[in-house]
Amino acid sequence: MTQLYALGIGRGTQNTQGQWLEVFYPAPLLNPPAELAAAILNTVGAGTHAIKNTEQGQRLSQTLRTARAGEQAAILDGFCADLPAAGQTVICALPTDSPPADVPTAYLKLQLISHRLVRPHGTNLEGIFATLPNVAWTNEGAIDAQELPARQHKARAQGTPLQVQAVDKFPRMTDYVMPSGVRIGDARRVRLGAYLGAGTTVMHEGFVNFNAGTEGPNMVEGRISAGVFIGAGSDLGGGCSIMGTLSGGGELIISVGKDCLIGANAGLGIPLGDRCTIEAGLYLTAGTKVQTIDTQGRSTGAVKAKKLANQSDLLFRRNSLNGTVECLPNRAAIALNKTLHQNN
Amino acid sequence: MTQLYALGIGRGTQNTQGQWLEVFYPAPLLNPPAELAAAILNTVGAGTHAIKNTEQGQRLSQTLRTARAGEQAAILDGFCADLPAAGQTVICALPTDSPPADVPTAYLKLQLISHRLVRPHGTNLEGIFATLPNVAWTNEGAIDAQELPARQHKARAQGTPLQVQAVDKFPRMTDYVMPSGVRIGDARRVRLGAYLGAGTTVMHEGFVNFNAGTEGPNMVEGRISAGVFIGAGSDLGGGCSIMGTLSGGGELIISVGKDCLIGANAGLGIPLGDRCTIEAGLYLTAGTKVQTIDTQGRSTGAVKAKKLANQSDLLFRRNSLNGTVECLPNRAAIALNKTLHQNN
Amino acid sequence: MTQLYALGIGRGTQNTQGQWLEVFYPAPLLNPPAELAAAILNTVGAGTHAIKNTEQGQRLSQTLRTARAGEQAAILDGFCADLPAAGQTVICALPTDSPPADVPTAYLKLQLISHRLVRPHGTNLEGIFATLPNVAWTNEGAIDAQELPARQHKARAQGTPLQVQAVDKFPRMTDYVMPSGVRIGDARRVRLGAYLGAGTTVMHEGFVNFNAGTEGPNMVEGRISAGVFIGAGSDLGGGCSIMGTLSGGGELIISVGKDCLIGANAGLGIPLGDRCTIEAGLYLTAGTKVQTIDTQGRSTGAVKAKKLANQSDLLFRRNSLNGTVECLPNRAAIALNKTLHQNN
Repeated sequence: MTQLYALGIGRGTQNTQGQWLEVFYPAPLLNPPAELAAAILNTVGAGTHAIKNTEQGQRLSQTLRTARAGEQAAILDGFCADLPAAGQTVICALPTDSPPADVPTAYLKLQLISHRLVRPHGTNLEGIFATLPNVAWTNEGAIDAQELPARQHKARAQGTPLQVQAVDKFPRMTDYVMPSGVRIGDARRVRLGAYLGAGTTVMHEGFVNFNAGTEGPNMVEGRISAGVFIGAGSDLGGGCSIMGTLSGGGELIISVGKDCLIGANAGLGIPLGDRCTIEAGLYLTAGTKVQTIDTQGRSTGAVKAKKLANQSDLLFRRNSLNGTVECLPNRAAIALNKTLHQNN
Repeated sequence: MTQLYALGIGRGTQNTQGQWLEVFYPAPLLNPPAELAAAILNTVGAGTHAIKNTEQGQRLSQTLRTARAGEQAAILDGFCADLPAAGQTVICALPTDSPPADVPTAYLKLQLISHRLVRPHGTNLEGIFATLPNVAWTNEGAIDAQELPARQHKARAQGTPLQVQAVDKFPRMTDYVMPSGVRIGDARRVRLGAYLGAGTTVMHEGFVNFNAGTEGPNMVEGRISAGVFIGAGSDLGGGCSIMGTLSGGGELIISVGKDCLIGANAGLGIPLGDRCTIEAGLYLTAGTKVQTIDTQGRSTGAVKAKKLANQSDLLFRRNSLNGTVECLPNRAAIALNKTLHQNN
Repeated sequence: MTQLYALGIGRGTQNTQGQWLEVFYPAPLLNPPAELAAAILNTVGAGTHAIKNTEQGQRLSQTLRTARAGEQAAILDGFCADLPAAGQTVICALPTDSPPADVPTAYLKLQLISHRLVRPHGTNLEGIFATLPNVAWTNEGAIDAQELPARQHKARAQGTPLQVQAVDKFPRMTDYVMPSGVRIGDARRVRLGAYLGAGTTVMHEGFVNFNAGTEGPNMVEGRISAGVFIGAGSDLGGGCSIMGTLSGGGELIISVGKDCLIGANAGLGIPLGDRCTIEAGLYLTAGTKVQTIDTQGRSTGAVKAKKLANQSDLLFRRNSLNGTVECLPNRAAIALNKTLHQNN
């Protein structure tokens, strides 16, 4: 049977050398229907293919309609009306989940995640940093970082200064995907490749890296590093820090279970189970020595925090009279602030 | 006598279904003069009214001039020259301070605050979250979040990718109001409905929610949650967190008095009086047990921080040799850093 | 011999009164060649000079070519094709390193730093706050903050709402200079006048003020205050705070040596030597009393942190069992996370 791992019909930007900078896929597909996969493989074939002119686009669009892929055909029609143009139309057909070898493939995979078609860690992103070029994200769209000075001079000479909002390998997610039921206070702080479940609010102080995210509903006012996933009903307080594997978390893959509360300005370096709380302002690393306390309030010894990884119903706090970091049974299982989740 | 609580002549955006997304009022009025109120009530009447065409606008503008409301007439003239147009011109006349029942009313009330016509908590905002739609804020203006994908596809097909800066119920304040004597390093972080007194600088790490703000002058490098007000001469250090009633502060309404200093990366969960200092890095919640120390340096017992709410001249710190959170008389009453307030 | 301290040929924006708001210099020069300096001094002379029309620009451009300054001549040609225009073309020739007395001079000096021609503290910026006007940075370019309301009304009347991204004396660096080998997740958070060495990544939570920066390579996820410089190979964790002289650091000029690690949500109020670590979440001010511990684990007394200023190979942490801030020999000299520096 004819199969594809993923398929995207998109439009992107190239630099002056004809190298891809980025690609937008309005409706990427994971495991597209066999009939559509066959239509693609029998015409353009597997891999990344630029559509060269309007006529080629129209022929392919007709093929897609015949294969009962009307939505994809409509996308292609929209992107082919003015070819050849500055923006290039591309078809990316991936036979398998291999590491992303070119820019259109990398962008397709990142958009699969942000469209919630796969979860973080659910698609192979090996080597994506080397694949992605460094791009200046401007009010005139994507510009190769190395071609920026010439463009800036030209724009100024025309009296319309260029506005450079970021120079980064990753764009903001919202320019590509806006998942339903989500609010984002400052879109610059959510990278393409983030996964935001329905009911997620990312406030202005929140941040979500690629290949990371939330199950939803969640209130995110802290920073979710690459690779970290947050379970349903958990809240990240303002300015809190979740360590990633690249940024100090080491070998442990950090995650947060359901119905947890990480306090404002707190920090986390171990994976948490469900219904755990970290007090505002406490930074718990894997190596933090923690005094454990039982339900009777008696000390039961000291352990490194990593020994408590993935356990549920724990409350971590720093005793404000003697400075000891303590771990107690979390009796006040968070009555999740419903107003907070609906509002903010 | 004819009275109105508030009046705004504005121009806004609607979605494709004719529902309001947002409204800009250049010069909203609180308790407008009786003559103007009468002119409005006798023509368009109380409530929210769209101006349908240029002719209606011109007639009304003439009426306003007769009622000696030249500024409002000029605003109306500017907004009616090209009606009917994509942007809709609207008059919002509120007889009383009732909960905002529609989008034009909610936006009028938020702009009353940001224009410093009322202080935070000074106008009824009950139910505003339910009233406000979720809007994509883009380089092409406000777009209904649900209509965003179609617009993104169309913009790409035209070679001009849409830039989605936020998807939120609240826009940034500066697109509507820029109060005098204020600087804002990153305008995305000040929501419409913030109140910033003259002499306020909100640095890039600062944040101010709606229905919250500063008396001025103030240096804000930390986060002011909804409902919180900061007195004159107080400084919020970089990354500090002020709890709001929605986000963990519980029943207590948090505020900060005059001439206080909240250190960088510190946090506050109780209302402070005047001339208080919280040491950098210390998170003081309502439940933090605090060792009180008298002017002789003698310990006078331990209390929960909420017992110290609203008291003045206190210094909170964590003793770095024994980990105890201490509260001392604040002798070094902050010689406010004048350079800091003028510069930054 | 004819000499100039610095030279810039630029194009800028003026308000409706003809006062400068900002100037962009594509390729500013420090100590330009004597032949070029002589050509400038013999034609326009020292100081700031607007080019009035295309003809004057062309004559001067010919002079520059004769003085073997082809790049500057090309810049001038680009900026003079349409004079007189809204954007003004300007030549700024500084005989000496004096305090910036006008806007074109201040912008030239800030661009010297961001182009890495001088390091932070390497050019005289005395009084720059008083020299720089407060500017609204919008999608239509720089607008005088006092002229903003009229422009907002007009833009709305035309159906194209103005987007006000900041109201500040300093613009974002990337609209003027994008140094090579650098990535910036959110460009709003790097002010013009920042110095970013090659190999620097400023993540979305990072911030760099003017007259401050990094030697490179560096990973910056925390805040670098005005005047602070970070040595090669040092990492600033997410949300960490480096005090500046204006914002609490007092008289000490704070800096960070090579190969240091400031943990996430930590803070620093003293200058550090090389290979120092501050544990995540620990705020070390100059006044923090620190327990020193020798290589045998024995306590050697308590000192204020400022006594440890500029020393190398120190690890600062808060003992999580007894709350004491400790300073130990830093045995785990940071094996710099190479993946982190290449990626993030």
